[in-house]
Parts: sequence; C-alpha cells; structure tokens
Amino acid sequence: MNQNIPYKIYLEEQEMPKQWYNVRADMKKKPAPILNPGTLKPVTLEELSGIFCRELAKQELNDTTAYFDIPQEILDFYRMYRPSPLVRAYCLEKKLGTPAHIYYKFEGNNTSGSHKLNSAIAQAYYAKKQGLKGVTTETGAGQWGTALSMACAYLDLDCQVYMVKCSYEQKPFRREVMRTYGAKVTPSPSMDTEVGRKMNAQFPGTTGSLGCAISEAVEAAMSQEGYRYVLGSVLSQVLLHQSVIGLEAKAALDKYNIKADMIIGCAGGGSNLGGLISPFAGQMLRGEAEYKLIAVEPASCPSLTRGVYAYDFCDTGKVCPLAKMYTLGSGFIPSASHAGGLRYHGMSSVVSELYDQGLLTARSVEQTEVFKAAQTFAKVEGILPAPESSHAIKVAMDEAIKCKETGEAKNIVFGLTGTGYFDMMAYQRFNDGEMQDYVPSDEDLTKAISQLPKVNVSVH
Amino acid sequence: MNQNIPYKIYLEEQEMPKQWYNVRADMKKKPAPILNPGTLKPVTLEELSGIFCRELAKQELNDTTAYFDIPQEILDFYRMYRPSPLVRAYCLEKKLGTPAHIYYKFEGNNTSGSHKLNSAIAQAYYAKKQGLKGVTTETGAGQWGTALSMACAYLDLDCQVYMVKCSYEQKPFRREVMRTYGAKVTPSPSMDTEVGRKMNAQFPGTTGSLGCAISEAVEAAMSQEGYRYVLGSVLSQVLLHQSVIGLEAKAALDKYNIKADMIIGCAGGGSNLGGLISPFAGQMLRGEAEYKLIAVEPASCPSLTRGVYAYDFCDTGKVCPLAKMYTLGSGFIPSASHAGGLRYHGMSSVVSELYDQGLLTARSVEQTEVFKAAQTFAKVEGILPAPESSHAIKVAMDEAIKCKETGEAKNIVFGLTGTGYFDMMAYQRFNDGEMQDYVPSDEDLTKAISQLPKVNVSVH
Repeated sequence: MNQNIPYKIYLEEQEMPKQWYNVRADMKKKPAPILNPGTLKPVTLEELSGIFCRELAKQELNDTTAYFDIPQEILDFYRMYRPSPLVRAYCLEKKLGTPAHIYYKFEGNNTSGSHKLNSAIAQAYYAKKQGLKGVTTETGAGQWGTALSMACAYLDLDCQVYMVKCSYEQKPFRREVMRTYGAKVTPSPSMDTEVGRKMNAQFPGTTGSLGCAISEAVEAAMSQEGYRYVLGSVLSQVLLHQSVIGLEAKAALDKYNIKADMIIGCAGGGSNLGGLISPFAGQMLRGEAEYKLIAVEPASCPSLTRGVYAYDFCDTGKVCPLAKMYTLGSGFIPSASHAGGLRYHGMSSVVSELYDQGLLTARSVEQTEVFKAAQTFAKVEGILPAPESSHAIKVAMDEAIKCKETGEAKNIVFGLTGTGYFDMMAYQRFNDGEMQDYVPSDEDLTKAISQLPKVNVSVH
Repeated sequence: MNQNIPYKIYLEEQEMPKQWYNVRADMKKKPAPILNPGTLKPVTLEELSGIFCRELAKQELNDTTAYFDIPQEILDFYRMYRPSPLVRAYCLEKKLGTPAHIYYKFEGNNTSGSHKLNSAIAQAYYAKKQGLKGVTTETGAGQWGTALSMACAYLDLDCQVYMVKCSYEQKPFRREVMRTYGAKVTPSPSMDTEVGRKMNAQFPGTTGSLGCAISEAVEAAMSQEGYRYVLGSVLSQVLLHQSVIGLEAKAALDKYNIKADMIIGCAGGGSNLGGLISPFAGQMLRGEAEYKLIAVEPASCPSLTRGVYAYDFCDTGKVCPLAKMYTLGSGFIPSASHAGGLRYHGMSSVVSELYDQGLLTARSVEQTEVFKAAQTFAKVEGILPAPESSHAIKVAMDEAIKCKETGEAKNIVFGLTGTGYFDMMAYQRFNDGEMQDYVPSDEDLTKAISQLPKVNVSVH
C-alpha cells in the first residue's frame, strides 16, 4: 500500500470550500430555461419567488455567476459534519486484485445519512433569512425529509413534511427521526389540503404517491402566511449547493496530486451526481482537463440511457415549473425498486444538458447486481451503503476489474452518497434471495414518452 | 468562537495510537483476579484458553504490562473508520449559553454504530491468527453482534450470533445488518443447543434473555471444533482494546494544549467508559495530573451508585468466570429501559476498582431526562445519539450549566459512544410522551444483592 496516501483524506477546516460552484456559468450552451406550468413561458423571478424563497429563486435562474459565497452560518453548520472524507478503498482494491486506485467521497457520516443535508441547510437558511416561519416539503423514503428536519431544527424554523403514506407506515424509523427533530410529519394524502381530500375521496384507502405529496406540500406552502416550498433534488439551486461535494473531492485529490481518470455517481434526480462532477465538468468545459464522467442509473428507471431530451413536468402533480431534461415522461411509474432515491422519471436539467453535450456518459445496472456489489463493499470497506449509492459502487468495481484485465492503474473516484441503515428491508429481500430485477419494456417507455407535454420554446 | 480549535479534531493517521494501554499496570492495588466458576479459584491461563483465544486469555490475565502493540492488521482496519473525531460542541455551548468548552469523542461513525468495533476486530483477529474457524457470541440489542459480524466478514471468519429472541423479532434491521455481513443469526433460546432446548421445553414460548443467549453461545463454542466464545464488554481485554478511544482523545486534546477538567462516560459493562478514561486515570495513578472522572449509569440499573463491591457471576447463566465488581447481583432484572447496552447487573472489574479507590465518581440519571438531553443535542449538534450515549450527554449538559452559574470556563469531555439509528422505537415513545422512568426499590436491590455467591478469596 502507498503509505503516502492515507485511508481517509480529510481537508483541514480552512481548506474547506467557501463558495459554491455554478457549472452553468461555464457552459456555452446553457440548460434550457424552466417554464411556468400555467403559461408555458420561461418563469420569472417574481413567479418563482412565490414558490421558493427569493434568494433561492435567484440562484435557480442565475446561469452566469460561477461562484456564490457560502454564508457564514451555513459554513458553521457544514463544519459539524463536513468536510466529508475522500476515502482510499485500499481493502476493496485488494479484494478485487486490481491495480486501479479507488477513491470514494463518503457523504453518509451524518444523521440524515446522505448528502441531502448540504442543500437542506442552505434552503432552510435562506428561508430563515427571508423572515419566513417555515417550509413545506414532501418525502418518499425519507432521506430528504430527515435532512430538512435537521436543518430546520438547527435554525428554529417550522418544518412540515408530507410523507407518502405507505412510507409513513412502513418506515416508522425515518418518521421518528424527523419527529425527534421537531418536524410535523403528515401521511399523504392527508385531509389537511384540498388536493389530499380530493385524492382520498377519489381513491379511498390509497397509500399515496410522491406526486401527490409534492402537490400537498406546495398547496400547504401557498395557503400559509410565511411559508415556502422546498425541494431536495433536480433543481439547479440544489446542484449549486451540492457542488460542495465535488469541490471538496477535487481539493482532496489536488492535495495529494491525484489526477482522477474517471468520476462515477449514481443518478436519480441528479443532485449528488451534479454536485460531485460540477468542478470536474467545469474544467472540461474550460478546456483545462479531461475526465470520464459516468452517471449510473437503475435499469428500472433509465431516464438518461433510454429517455428522450424534452420539456417535461418535474413533478407528477404538474404544479412545479417544467424543465427540459432527459425524461421517461412524468406519467412513467417505475417498478418498486429498492433505490427509492433513484425512482425519478427525469433528470436535472444541468446534468441532462451536460449529457447531451457529451461531457457525461451513462450506464444502467440491475438491482440484484447492485446489492451484490454493496455486500462485497460492506464486508471489506466496513460501510453498509445505501442502495442508491451502491449503483456507483457496482460500476466502480466493474471499471476496477477492467483495469485488472488491462493492467492499468487508473484513478477511479466515485460518490458514496449515503448509508443503508434505514434500508434494511431491501437488504433482507436480498439476503433471503427474493430480490427481483425489472426492466421496462420498449412499449412501456414509448407509451409514457408519447404523453410528454407539447411545448415549443424558442429562447436562448 | 475560538477559531483556533476546529469543530472536529482529527488526528493524522501517523498520530494514531499504535499501542493499547492497560491501566491495570499502573494500579498499585490491582483488580481482584477472576475466578473459575467451577472451582471458585483464580482462573488459569489454560482454563481461560478453553473459552477464549489464547492471546486474549493472556491479555485478560496480564495486569502488569502497560502497553500492548496493536497488530498491523488491526491498525489497517482501524484506519477505515478511525481516528474518530474529537468534536468541539460549539453549537451546544451556544445553546446552553455556557462559558464551558464541551468536547465529545464520537465513536458512532461506523456501520456498527458504536465503539464496539474497536474490540470486535481485535478479538476476531486473534481468533483468526490462532487458526480458528469461527467465533460465537450473544447479542441483545445488536450493537455488539453487528460489530463482530463486520470484523469477521473482513477477516473471513465464521460468526455465529445468538440473538435474544424478542430482539430478533422486534429489531429485524440489526438482524439483517448482521446477515448482510454473513453472520449466522439464531434466535435464542434455539433448538441448536442443549441449554436452548431445555429452556424451550421448560418455558414454552419464551422470548429469551441475555443470560440464556450467553449460555447458548458458550455451549456452541465448546461443542464445535475450532470455535471460541467472544464477549463485547466487562472483560479487561475489552477495556484494553477500547483504550484506543481514550488514547486518541488525549492525543487530540494534547495537540491543541487543552487540559480536560472532567471526563464523562456512560457506564453499562464499562467497556466504553473504561477505554475512554484509562489514559487519564493512568496519569492520576502516576501522580501526573488530576481529572474529575464521572461514570453515568441509568437510575434503573445503578450498579455503581447503589450496588455492592463483591464477587459475582458476570453472566446470569453462570458459565463465565466470576469477577469482583460493583454489582446488583446477577439475578437482578433491570426494568425495560431503552438503553439496552446499560442494562447490566455488574461493572467491569477495572472500572469497579478505580471507583473503589476514589479515582472515579458515579451518578445515575433517569431516562426521560436523558432523552430530553438527547433531543436537544440532536437539534443543535446534528447527531442523533444512542440512548446509552445520551446518559453522558445529560451529565455533560448539567455540568456545563453549573459552569454558567459559576462563570467557569471548564473543559468538559464526554464520550459519545454511538448513534441511535436503530433505537427509533425508544425515540417514538419519547416523542409520543409515553416514556416512563423506573427506579428499583431498596427492597428489590437488597433481595438481589442477598443472593450473591459466597466467595472467600485471599489472593493479591
């Protein structure tokens, strides 16, 4: 083992990024503008400020400013759980017998269990600064809701989470973490909102959906004085905040003069992947360096590898702005995969545009293989990974094995977005040999894609 | 805030301890020897080597060697999740408005979720080195079983865990973590062992007890060629391995010239507390420094504050050696507290002797107050603590508030042994306002203590 590179590279506090990086600023061809779902015209700052905090709406629309100062209060919060380590996977390398050097940026060492906290604290901070009373959001599996609850507790901001009813009932632990942090967690559909009451009347006994939970959260924000809605992925503002992952990773690599050959991340809505690759994609856009950037998505929800690049609704409830993105259609219902965080029909418009420009490649993997990789990783590296993160592990291992065949000592970097401690039902299915794979048929995809909204936009 | 002291002090890899420290070597009056439960005479190395690996048996009996080299393989494993951070609790200090400086040594950043892994890898290593096929153990709540499963998976050693049946059924997540790491997890009482079959016949439908699980694990080790039994707390060998906590904490404090005024740890069997305080107690024993050392135990199981110092069985099954310790009697059944790791009738003989010599003070706290402290801590410091660890948080906060009253800027250090991610049922009871406190009556204690074994030992 190369004793010059420690198992875990931790930046010193003074080496931590003090600015977020907005990769859009370095893109010659920008992501297409997001559209008002009512008018189908590019959304204005005023319109967007009705849903999101004003500062966040500004960040959302700003595709020219490369760096945003991270406010001191957010830096203070980051210091409680950041910098996250860049880990050299010595034991995994040994297990695979590969000459490759494998590194992972581990974002799971905080109570939310994932990278979501990076944006949650930013969004809660700007809400607090604007003098709001609270924020509303939806959560499926619960990572985002947990992260937001933690951020709001820290800032003494009210937090209302609409949790998809089946998760509320089947994942009581996540629900209790949120409640411990003082959040009000409501099973969706609820009787608190018009859309919830309507849904309950129309489908008695329904266990809910993410689309409905979003609609309820938006309605709750609109109908209460001093509240705004917040969202944990997909948005450009979220990718901006998540750039802290990539900036730290790059600083850690630079500190030890390591040049990454490839950077791999799992891709659901794109928040982790976009944050991780942003600084590296920026170098590529500026002609300063070359990397192989790989997005890994579940074969059950293959928006990049099998979707189309078109305007679509970001939410199934069709209340949020439309974005141009790689999408399977907002009506696409992915199979009950255990990587809940990757079950999204579309992809961040920034990631989509980078992919369309060829800066990024994509690969889809099936979940049984992903869990096998997760188990191998857990045994040798000691961390039980989240199913989402394990998609990146699988491809990193595949690439390391290729290096074994070719004898190349490539530097493979991947994002380990979180831990699987609240995903043990999925592991149980795997342990019991009952896990199944599902790949949508061409017919299913064609049908979903045929229902995309008809939008003609001639801006940019 | 003093910007000279970072939020988290991480030692560099080369600053990590390369030896464990055996505080017994510096004690003029040593802990009394452990006794063979059959003969009631001091147990010999040969006898002990039948139950434990030979190297561990040697460590158990060695009260004169101050430092033991940590084998390279264990150092390599430690580097995957150590050094653990010594965190300056800036946000908690601000919340309490205290002039005190609060630090905590956080052992929860690994998949086992606690400090248990420090000894699990050591015990698994020596078993592997001896050429054994596997190890057996018992687990209640599951922290120790999880840690041992991880260590055995890393070393490719068979791991058989007898898990108290009610936990096996009620805590399926911990069970699945162990299974993911390849351990064989058996609900106890099982039909695999004589003692288990007997128990099932005598008490049909019983949900088991830790005492019975220990007896099954010992029997399983004895009856299989190439197996030994391992235990996660109480033993002197475990405290030796856990000294890595205190050594790292001391090195981190020394690095920033911080002189701790008090060091606080929760106390169940004593493994975390003993490991944390060992190097500091060593300084006190050698007359080099003075600290206030505080053990915190649950009011429901107050072995130090209300027990007696006498020889007792370490396990309710009475198969393990006897130790002289502060005990409530091995027949004492603590109430169903949510800090499962602190529900032990006795206390490590090393911690007991330090307490008896007056180097250590003890305090007991009730669980509702403990969960209130845990919630406050979680909200401002971002980590959801284990119920066990939260006992130390409660007393650290009490001490910080005293400093506010007296205006003293004391340095308070406490051990945050783990996270509460698998304890959400307990938090749910707290969130729902349904948590109860229980303090045993004098009559209950007198009765349990009256049943202590009659032992006369005249050694040392």
